[in-house]
Amino acid sequence: MDLRHVLATNLRRIRHEKGLSQEALAHEAGVDRAHVSKIERGVTQVGIEIIGKFVDVLGVEPAEFFQLPPKRTRKR
Amino acid sequence: MDLRHVLATNLRRIRHEKGLSQEALAHEAGVDRAHVSKIERGVTQVGIEIIGKFVDVLGVEPAEFFQLPPKRTRKR
Repeated sequence: MDLRHVLATNLRRIRHEKGLSQEALAHEAGVDRAHVSKIERGVTQVGIEIIGKFVDVLGVEPAEFFQLPPKRTRKR
Repeated sequence: MDLRHVLATNLRRIRHEKGLSQEALAHEAGVDRAHVSKIERGVTQVGIEIIGKFVDVLGVEPAEFFQLPPKRTRKR
């Protein structure tokens, strides 16, 4: 399963819910803004150390970044 | 939040529940066995592409790999 788009969708949703811009998230997490943009477009691989930083800045459970959308067709 | 130990604990638990050895998981996921061992000891960073492979082999939801243990003290 390619998790890039799962992460992309959840990160964008959570960031919007918290009212942060990509710039603000990038700054607070100590990550390059272009990298945040790529993660939210699902066009780059991501390490869990980056996800840990997003957890800290956004204040959500780590599992929230990997929730599958309800209507998604599971490919297994 | 350092997610290496969260992932390590969950991966080891799920792998045991499925009755797979590290060797079998590594083989089926197409990952080096030494890398699986390091992931389960929490001593290496991990990319989400690897987690996607574990999802496929172990047949669990991706979020399961990032569930926090109930008694964990949250550091935020």
